[in-house]
Amino acid sequence: MTTSFNPAELALPGIRELQPYQAGKPIEELERELGIKDIVKLASNENPLGVSPAVQAALTTAISGLARYPDANGFYLKDALATKFTVDINQITLGNGSNDVLELLARTFVQPQHEVIFSQHAFVVYPLVTKAIGATPVQVKAKDYGHDLDAMAAAITDKTRMIFIANPNNPTGTFLQKQEIEAFLQKVPAHVLVVLDEAYYEYVPEHERAPSMQWIDRFPNLVVCRTFSKAYGLAGLRAGFAVSHAAVADLMNRIRQPFNMNQLALTAALAALTDEHFLAESIDVNQAGMTQLIDFCDQHGLNYIPSHGNFLTIEVGPNAADIYQKLLLAGVIVRPVGGYELPNHLRVSIGLADENDAFCKAMESILSE
Amino acid sequence: MTTSFNPAELALPGIRELQPYQAGKPIEELERELGIKDIVKLASNENPLGVSPAVQAALTTAISGLARYPDANGFYLKDALATKFTVDINQITLGNGSNDVLELLARTFVQPQHEVIFSQHAFVVYPLVTKAIGATPVQVKAKDYGHDLDAMAAAITDKTRMIFIANPNNPTGTFLQKQEIEAFLQKVPAHVLVVLDEAYYEYVPEHERAPSMQWIDRFPNLVVCRTFSKAYGLAGLRAGFAVSHAAVADLMNRIRQPFNMNQLALTAALAALTDEHFLAESIDVNQAGMTQLIDFCDQHGLNYIPSHGNFLTIEVGPNAADIYQKLLLAGVIVRPVGGYELPNHLRVSIGLADENDAFCKAMESILSE
Repeated sequence: MTTSFNPAELALPGIRELQPYQAGKPIEELERELGIKDIVKLASNENPLGVSPAVQAALTTAISGLARYPDANGFYLKDALATKFTVDINQITLGNGSNDVLELLARTFVQPQHEVIFSQHAFVVYPLVTKAIGATPVQVKAKDYGHDLDAMAAAITDKTRMIFIANPNNPTGTFLQKQEIEAFLQKVPAHVLVVLDEAYYEYVPEHERAPSMQWIDRFPNLVVCRTFSKAYGLAGLRAGFAVSHAAVADLMNRIRQPFNMNQLALTAALAALTDEHFLAESIDVNQAGMTQLIDFCDQHGLNYIPSHGNFLTIEVGPNAADIYQKLLLAGVIVRPVGGYELPNHLRVSIGLADENDAFCKAMESILSE
Repeated sequence: MTTSFNPAELALPGIRELQPYQAGKPIEELERELGIKDIVKLASNENPLGVSPAVQAALTTAISGLARYPDANGFYLKDALATKFTVDINQITLGNGSNDVLELLARTFVQPQHEVIFSQHAFVVYPLVTKAIGATPVQVKAKDYGHDLDAMAAAITDKTRMIFIANPNNPTGTFLQKQEIEAFLQKVPAHVLVVLDEAYYEYVPEHERAPSMQWIDRFPNLVVCRTFSKAYGLAGLRAGFAVSHAAVADLMNRIRQPFNMNQLALTAALAALTDEHFLAESIDVNQAGMTQLIDFCDQHGLNYIPSHGNFLTIEVGPNAADIYQKLLLAGVIVRPVGGYELPNHLRVSIGLADENDAFCKAMESILSE
């Protein structure tokens, strides 16, 4: 009965055309491929300080209990988040990384007949989750590499169901001031959810940070997403969360996989939340590294996109793909961003001083060829 | 603009009516609620031996690297699985627990106009993932608490897109012999995917195990799911996988979250695969515990559903909810299965000898009231 089985024909039309997310290669895989040792990876906006000692201690203690299922409600973590961010515990949805939360939002609210708006050069997961549902992605042209909120507001139609805003944006590092976002929220009709993805929030200077979670009382269609993958140093564990109107969180939690965050991710995120010292150090290291990279660019006449994140996206010219390869052979992994319609740029994650230095030295040698 | 925001109205119709999965309570939460110490949890079919020492060692080593993103392709784990199960690496899809894989299957192939068939008393995640898409769940009446494959074949229509079969089934422990499944597969038309969920496979005696993954060559519409949550003892880490036709795996991997399995889950699953000793011990402990529980039932004239899993579902009568509460107060957590249309039964996971004994003693005392 199965002779004419054709999986591609049976799959959702949107999925057939989907190009999967291209993740950076793990260091060991590249070392194996290239036959190089001691590679410096500045490609995935990870925390160069590694894992906080408090988190490492908490994880070691938790390992022996792993044959038990995780706490499906993530009670202790949600309680700590609610306290820290002065929101209600019922407003929180935990995710297997903020990618999980972004996907849950799309799956809960977006149907094939809907449109989803995001900016040119914005995080690739927005079109991915949109297409996986069979809905229509609407990409709005960027302004100075960042979100053009006026154009995004103008793109709203009756079919629009969701708008993604990344602030700071990845991979450009561009940043919208709180007044701009607030004015935008006032223009968005009630049938549209605004997802404010603040994965890089902790790197923004305090006086520039938006009181985004507190806006939800006034704008119940606003959802704020955060992650433990960047400043908190837990990319490998997958921990993220959304804060929203309680009714939005209730719906998302209905389709959430009951054990979407594993027990070690719950344990680590809780420990990371309380380790203020590590967080402060991560931000300091990032500021110092940013200065180091910017000085290098200025000295060599390289343009870069001013960044509020833990990375700097540098204009290296039309031979960016070539330079990427040469950096790789010199043992430095950065991220090509041609897939983000930035074919002349490379995104460099901020590392430790000596890692940034390795990039600068390799780049200098390539430029002087 | 947001005064009439109504999230329930904006959500997918199926999601509004969804009852989320009710997970068992973590031991600490119950101890806190009831003011009891040393609770015995026999409620979630976890491995009572805990985590294999080989896995604990591997995890301890991996903790310091967690600020890096996981290997998005899970190369090392997939390679080990392909070798162990004699399948091609391109046939494998990794999941954040097999729950993730079951959901990916539904999201890849099932659309709102489709029907999804599963058995009465089968795992609750099958209707959940079906309803989350807005498709129609078709529950087929059980035969002797297990799958009635003839009735399931007869339920197939032009709209059927997927059939879930749990073997052994949770929460009944019923088991279909390989010949029965093979005969069923021959009847299923090519537009229908058959998902064979073998979460409890390792507990089945070797001579009764189906060569299910090798069937895929003949039945390309067959997908086999396995998990590390049971015999491998990694419930807390979320690790599962599907083996399918390579074209099916390719489609699933397109909508899979790039980092759906976290780094420690990848590391632990790889270590668990090689620890044959722990697996054998887990199976031995299960057999001994099963004998212990069956002997108890026989001595007290309690009916039970003969089980091929790591649990026994016992008929305790119409006051099952009462008995569940009394067991709880005696410090023993089991699982009520009223939600599975088994209001007179309780599901007891097989624990260590003294844990099983604690259940028997508490139950004996309740029965003699």
